[in-house]
Amino acid sequence: MHAFRSHTCADLTKADVGQTVRLSGWVHRIRDHGGVLFIDLRDHYGVTQLLCDPDSPVFADVEKVRSEWCIRIDGVVKARDASLANPKLPTGEIEVFIRDLEVLGAAEELPLIVFGDQEYPEETRLRYRFLDLRREAMQSNMTLRSDVVSSIRKRMWDQNFREYQTPIITASSPEGARDFLVPSRLHPGKFYALPQAPQQFKQLIMVSGFDKYFQIAPCFRDEDPRADRSPTDFYQLDLEMSFVSQQDVFDTIQPVMQGVFEEFGAGRKVDAEWPQISYRDAALWYGTDKPDLRNPIKMQVVSDHFRGSGFAIFAKLLEQDGTEIRAIPAPGGGSRKFCDRMNAFAQKEGLPGMGYIFWRDGDDGMEAAGPLAKNIGPERTEAIRQQLGLGVGDAAFFLGGKPSSFEKVAGKARVEIGNELGLTEQDRFAFAWIVDFPMYEADEETGKVDFSHNPFSMPQGGLDALNDNPLDVLGYQYDLACNGYELVSGAIRNHKPEIMFKAFELAGYGEDEVRKRFGGMVNAFRFGAPPHGGCAAGIDRMVMLLADTANIREVIMFPMNQRAEDLMMNAPSDATSDQLMELGLRVLPKEA
Amino acid sequence: MHAFRSHTCADLTKADVGQTVRLSGWVHRIRDHGGVLFIDLRDHYGVTQLLCDPDSPVFADVEKVRSEWCIRIDGVVKARDASLANPKLPTGEIEVFIRDLEVLGAAEELPLIVFGDQEYPEETRLRYRFLDLRREAMQSNMTLRSDVVSSIRKRMWDQNFREYQTPIITASSPEGARDFLVPSRLHPGKFYALPQAPQQFKQLIMVSGFDKYFQIAPCFRDEDPRADRSPTDFYQLDLEMSFVSQQDVFDTIQPVMQGVFEEFGAGRKVDAEWPQISYRDAALWYGTDKPDLRNPIKMQVVSDHFRGSGFAIFAKLLEQDGTEIRAIPAPGGGSRKFCDRMNAFAQKEGLPGMGYIFWRDGDDGMEAAGPLAKNIGPERTEAIRQQLGLGVGDAAFFLGGKPSSFEKVAGKARVEIGNELGLTEQDRFAFAWIVDFPMYEADEETGKVDFSHNPFSMPQGGLDALNDNPLDVLGYQYDLACNGYELVSGAIRNHKPEIMFKAFELAGYGEDEVRKRFGGMVNAFRFGAPPHGGCAAGIDRMVMLLADTANIREVIMFPMNQRAEDLMMNAPSDATSDQLMELGLRVLPKEA
Repeated sequence: MHAFRSHTCADLTKADVGQTVRLSGWVHRIRDHGGVLFIDLRDHYGVTQLLCDPDSPVFADVEKVRSEWCIRIDGVVKARDASLANPKLPTGEIEVFIRDLEVLGAAEELPLIVFGDQEYPEETRLRYRFLDLRREAMQSNMTLRSDVVSSIRKRMWDQNFREYQTPIITASSPEGARDFLVPSRLHPGKFYALPQAPQQFKQLIMVSGFDKYFQIAPCFRDEDPRADRSPTDFYQLDLEMSFVSQQDVFDTIQPVMQGVFEEFGAGRKVDAEWPQISYRDAALWYGTDKPDLRNPIKMQVVSDHFRGSGFAIFAKLLEQDGTEIRAIPAPGGGSRKFCDRMNAFAQKEGLPGMGYIFWRDGDDGMEAAGPLAKNIGPERTEAIRQQLGLGVGDAAFFLGGKPSSFEKVAGKARVEIGNELGLTEQDRFAFAWIVDFPMYEADEETGKVDFSHNPFSMPQGGLDALNDNPLDVLGYQYDLACNGYELVSGAIRNHKPEIMFKAFELAGYGEDEVRKRFGGMVNAFRFGAPPHGGCAAGIDRMVMLLADTANIREVIMFPMNQRAEDLMMNAPSDATSDQLMELGLRVLPKEA
Repeated sequence: MHAFRSHTCADLTKADVGQTVRLSGWVHRIRDHGGVLFIDLRDHYGVTQLLCDPDSPVFADVEKVRSEWCIRIDGVVKARDASLANPKLPTGEIEVFIRDLEVLGAAEELPLIVFGDQEYPEETRLRYRFLDLRREAMQSNMTLRSDVVSSIRKRMWDQNFREYQTPIITASSPEGARDFLVPSRLHPGKFYALPQAPQQFKQLIMVSGFDKYFQIAPCFRDEDPRADRSPTDFYQLDLEMSFVSQQDVFDTIQPVMQGVFEEFGAGRKVDAEWPQISYRDAALWYGTDKPDLRNPIKMQVVSDHFRGSGFAIFAKLLEQDGTEIRAIPAPGGGSRKFCDRMNAFAQKEGLPGMGYIFWRDGDDGMEAAGPLAKNIGPERTEAIRQQLGLGVGDAAFFLGGKPSSFEKVAGKARVEIGNELGLTEQDRFAFAWIVDFPMYEADEETGKVDFSHNPFSMPQGGLDALNDNPLDVLGYQYDLACNGYELVSGAIRNHKPEIMFKAFELAGYGEDEVRKRFGGMVNAFRFGAPPHGGCAAGIDRMVMLLADTANIREVIMFPMNQRAEDLMMNAPSDATSDQLMELGLRVLPKEA
């Protein structure tokens, strides 16, 4: 017989009754029924009930075992009484009578109980991660993550992509976030950096003629911690293709993502229609470039109804350039109590408030209520109602000014309204491509033009487009939104040196600066670069959505805490003076 | 029609004749046959011959294209004359007459020619890696690597392993090689480290109850560069299993490795029998713990034949404790010329030389030649010949002293002899498990006992074994040798704190020291650790063997050079003073 087990703890059924078996695992739970001990023995695969009474030659030893001891037992499989069978367990019809016991690993008093679902502070969970991970929910999250990554890989191979590994110790690249640096010992005083993403390398792979690349790639950004991101590293499905247009990239990644969500969505609905929404429309309709389309509310411009109206605040606002009034329709929100609550929400978010109108049954049929309706009068009120397609029992909220001043709060209010009114569908994954991102934005105060997103994207219209107003230039750049999160981001790249230099020039970067920052890539583009594009999908984010958690540490095996510390392994820690000497570094004394 | 291509450059056959097609790719080669231009257009998938003459509306433009320009053409598929067909190419029966041309990416004068197999200095190849990678051999090495990794993953999943990712930014661990450090910004003056291997994490995964783990894991060691290793990172197939003995690990990994070598060995023979050889036997028979078993030569101890013999050097040596005489049989090496050459080889390797005997046809039948034979006389010489099973035309070489003083050179001489005599079989992968590694070794000068290999291995015999002479203790530790390389290394781990502390005590490390160095893991072992073991297989090494190259940079997409520099991306480089300030570091001025 095998030294440790003849079966796993999920294997035994009625068919095995009478057999002598060997099992290994952890003592999950012990119950003492008047001299008969019942032990649930757990391994990665399942749970098997063991029992032992004074007839067993090892009863005295079995009495000593405690929760989370790792043990090996030999025993005889017995059928349970039908009344005692547990239909929820695959092994629920049998139990194993212990005849021999070996303690493989005893356990001291536990700082964290594995059985059950008692809550613990995150610090405790991370310090004793090896116990936390034994719990059912964490076992399930980790296997989910592993299965998702494997499924992604399979789907990418099925689409004729190959996975290529790019360097992890490489050059610092000024791409937005902070780099993690790695001091060089062979070149003291110089530093490598960990890649924020394999962006330049994947483009170089295209220039190298590989056509289709993907990688489940670790990415490193030295960012301040947040609940939904890791303070050190995260993983993305990184892909790049040559000789493609934007639609080709969409047609490639949609089946992968949709397939993964269908495979692991546990029955939740997965939208097959992925609308393409321009960045501008997304801002207008949803107040964000990562809209949650499970929420059916779409905002609208209603400026005309307020221009010159009796509602002086809006009428006056509209006299200024670049201002707008937008409405958030709220079907079913037609009560003063609800409207006041939403108004208070907007105030909490820093706005003066949201005007509203709601429609109710009055003495003479439908009537519009709320101070706004009075101020603008019945005709304008009715025109608004008709534009928004609302009726009795509904409401509409209004925000005015420069869109940039209220768009974000409008977006949040839309989410709040959708949730409060139960309009936002649950158990569904709704996707949308956000396209036509502007290449540039102007600083509100200085007017200085800079890249608004990815400087490597190809401007729509190519070189010619860059001769017009930069703020009108759109990029072949896109995001995939899912349930209010950005899941994917990508672009068709700017592979022509002359267009790239011009694009950077508009943002105030000279050729020398570009060569200095992105020399590896720009240099390569001089030698026959193919048109190419791609995207990156956040793995941790996908698994979070599938596991239905908002805390990234629930889907990472050994995460850092929110202060970027590993309490279990004791990182970060002091370097030795020998190490510092070799690296040519000195640690500055802390400021007093 | 698609913006860039209707077919790849490997797609078109006679069946497509007459069709209008669109292709994109690189200009591989241009030939001008008196006003008719032939262009080999290359993409990742293949090559298609294009032609163009003044009848084409774009002839003038086609005349301008140069090697490695990236172009898109439209054209009509034509059958080649049977006499001009190229049976080596899938597209060899057709050519495409160019009717339209778009230059997607022009190329400046090339620092490295892609077509053909001109040799370039490695610095040129690495600086222009994106051109080097376009060459056929590199395309093939990179796809091989990608396919090997994918096949390994599939085989591991098929054996019910799941892949789990372990942290890349983590704690410094004193495991032998130097760590790469990563300064912390949130904790200035403190450092993370990149993992030398996920050793502690994979053991923690076992303590966490996951049963079977694998990972294609990047590993980081700040080692001095060498041709066959990367100066920064390398990849390993890392695996670990709970509730297993050594043989279980062998039974798991052998089908994976054997399968991969069979799948990608291109017809080379892959041994299915993997002998298990003790470390001691390997040292004796092959002079190394990574023997090349394609070479049939096995060394033997022949001390008795020299004890008290007329060969004073050996006879005297044998009077000292711990000395031995070993013979390297050399079937077919029976000529003075060959023997002298091998003797010179040993001298070049730092030994006084190798005595030898060779057997030839003499006047009275077989005679033994060489000074050694004369010194020890015919009887002893004959006894040696019989022990070694040699005859006319064969030779034997002799080395004496403490084995540690000559074993390494003996091993090299064995390889040299095998190669010189053509005994070492080509086109074959021969594997052997090296087992029963000693846990400890004593420093030759100080006598101090220290771990000889992995301190985390379980000593054979457990705690009891540690009460005897440490130098006699063997570990459940193993390597897999293939063709003279170490491909896999692993162990059954020491999962019991009391045995671990005792094992470290023998090597002079107190409990405090162990807790300080390996606290994460040792702490976990207090809470019900399962017996577990595993191994790690070098991915780069496997691909090197399969690609038949001894230079690791041939199988890495973007490797560092031998000074650990990335010339293309410019790494390492200076950090900005802002970066250093945030990290609380100062770069020390170079010593004058």
